[in-house]
Amino acid sequence: MDIAHALDLAHQASDAVRGTTSPNPAVGAVILDADGDVIGIGATAPPGGPHAEVVALHAAGARAHGGTAVVTLEPCNHYGRTGPCSKALLDAGIRQVFYANADPFPSAAGGAEFLRAAGVDTHFLDQPIRALQPWLSATRLGRPHVTLKFASTLDGFSGATDGTSQWITGDTARAYVHEDRSKRDAIIVGTGTVLSDNPSLTARTDTGLYEHQPRRVVIGSREVPDSSHLAQLGYEQYAGIPEALSALWDTGCRDILIEGGPALAASALRLGVVDQVQAYIAPALLGAGKSVLTWPQETTMDEIMRFETTSVRQLGSDVLIEMMMRKKH
Amino acid sequence: MDIAHALDLAHQASDAVRGTTSPNPAVGAVILDADGDVIGIGATAPPGGPHAEVVALHAAGARAHGGTAVVTLEPCNHYGRTGPCSKALLDAGIRQVFYANADPFPSAAGGAEFLRAAGVDTHFLDQPIRALQPWLSATRLGRPHVTLKFASTLDGFSGATDGTSQWITGDTARAYVHEDRSKRDAIIVGTGTVLSDNPSLTARTDTGLYEHQPRRVVIGSREVPDSSHLAQLGYEQYAGIPEALSALWDTGCRDILIEGGPALAASALRLGVVDQVQAYIAPALLGAGKSVLTWPQETTMDEIMRFETTSVRQLGSDVLIEMMMRKKH
Repeated sequence: MDIAHALDLAHQASDAVRGTTSPNPAVGAVILDADGDVIGIGATAPPGGPHAEVVALHAAGARAHGGTAVVTLEPCNHYGRTGPCSKALLDAGIRQVFYANADPFPSAAGGAEFLRAAGVDTHFLDQPIRALQPWLSATRLGRPHVTLKFASTLDGFSGATDGTSQWITGDTARAYVHEDRSKRDAIIVGTGTVLSDNPSLTARTDTGLYEHQPRRVVIGSREVPDSSHLAQLGYEQYAGIPEALSALWDTGCRDILIEGGPALAASALRLGVVDQVQAYIAPALLGAGKSVLTWPQETTMDEIMRFETTSVRQLGSDVLIEMMMRKKH
Repeated sequence: MDIAHALDLAHQASDAVRGTTSPNPAVGAVILDADGDVIGIGATAPPGGPHAEVVALHAAGARAHGGTAVVTLEPCNHYGRTGPCSKALLDAGIRQVFYANADPFPSAAGGAEFLRAAGVDTHFLDQPIRALQPWLSATRLGRPHVTLKFASTLDGFSGATDGTSQWITGDTARAYVHEDRSKRDAIIVGTGTVLSDNPSLTARTDTGLYEHQPRRVVIGSREVPDSSHLAQLGYEQYAGIPEALSALWDTGCRDILIEGGPALAASALRLGVVDQVQAYIAPALLGAGKSVLTWPQETTMDEIMRFETTSVRQLGSDVLIEMMMRKKH
């Protein structure tokens, strides 16, 4: 097996545990034996459990000796709740290590240096790993990574002028939204959305709930009705976005989704805390209606908020466009 | 060469002449010899010139005898300005004919039947051909096929609230727009767009004009200023969309593009004459601004205009979503 294919397997393994590892990163690791055959695949266990490398080494057993490790993130080098992965790889007799991203976390970094110093052939692949990106961004920023999600018609409306609204997008997009929720640490909505839509904010399939459920977070000072789905399921409430981000960071959230409504979305954009945008676009036009953003003031083209498109995919008849905030230079 | 590959070549040949053949369809034809080698490729010449099959047969010469023809449209069977293609294929000794679309034009149809009756092995592939679709639609409707094009931010704005606007999309999308224009019979704008943007409505590259230029059409009763680009280049003006479609049909247009502005776009949608939508979406948000449609009345979700997504492609950082109006059942 070549390294690129092994990295794909590691990425897939890590994606499957997204949402369950915070505040730790969702990492994937693949161990190849000396012949290049896959003998162990691992992903980060929930906090307190083993890291990906240790899980993969355990699966590989003694055949890891003389083998290769391919990991999505530089092996950690510190004694936290678990021992350092760099040392575990060395102890298992791994000869070669390939890692896709450098560890940005100062106290954990240095794994590659440690391995090199110990004579392990260590390679930095410098490849973006989708499942790691929110955690890397959060670690750099010192606050949770924020994805702003909305669904709209092509002309930018999420509902009609008379207040009617319904799922704008189709079944395939809806299923994808729920899968995406199941990988997040928390979902945030404003009190307006709670009062108008009575959302559950659960991640579910046609047959039931995903195993991992994101924390349900409400922002605003209005009261959440006792009869609401959120009151029955449990939720957290904060006065504003800064308070929410701070409290969520302190309690381990790294990857959160803002799902609405238009006033909360606009506030997040104007606070400059939106790192990524997920726009689910339905092939439909309304002409007039409820905009995806509530924007009180006049605008000029110089103030346009530009993003980088990172992914475009068709979901049934709908289109999901994912974008990252452009880096300020 | 297999038939699917030959059909691709025929499609490419036809796409290259789009815009130059109306009121005739842009057809492509490939002739294979008895061994299956390509010996002739042809596309429809401008009106009065030979059809695709005749061009391809001419290129193939005597080797066409015993060979195969692969065409994007059923060979015509009538004596118009040129003789029937069905007879030309028969006379050249073609043994097999594959065609992707049936001819919907009553006086030209019957080519396949004629060939079959003459003992030619004739196959209807029933495959959509992008370059033919507007002509097929126009022929069925008895009016030009109408594509509504707009460019907007993700939240549905083509300009800011203060009236400023500029190219929302990037270079790649802009180049694609010009290439697309070069394949249309006419481009339509409203007088509002003429007065505010002073467009040229030409199809151009960085170095000059495309060989084929669409007719420049203005709709509305306001006067086009003598100093405008359109006045210098030449244009046609009609009072309303129905008058324009009727006059353009009568003078040979089959495939037209409505480029703006928001009031004209809304009128076309409300008249029910929009067959296709091209939405160029920039990865940007404005919050508030000039909508892509000027919609005077209230809306309700029951009136949402839904389309079928036919193509999604990334153009640089922008996304082009193409949609067809859903067929009424």
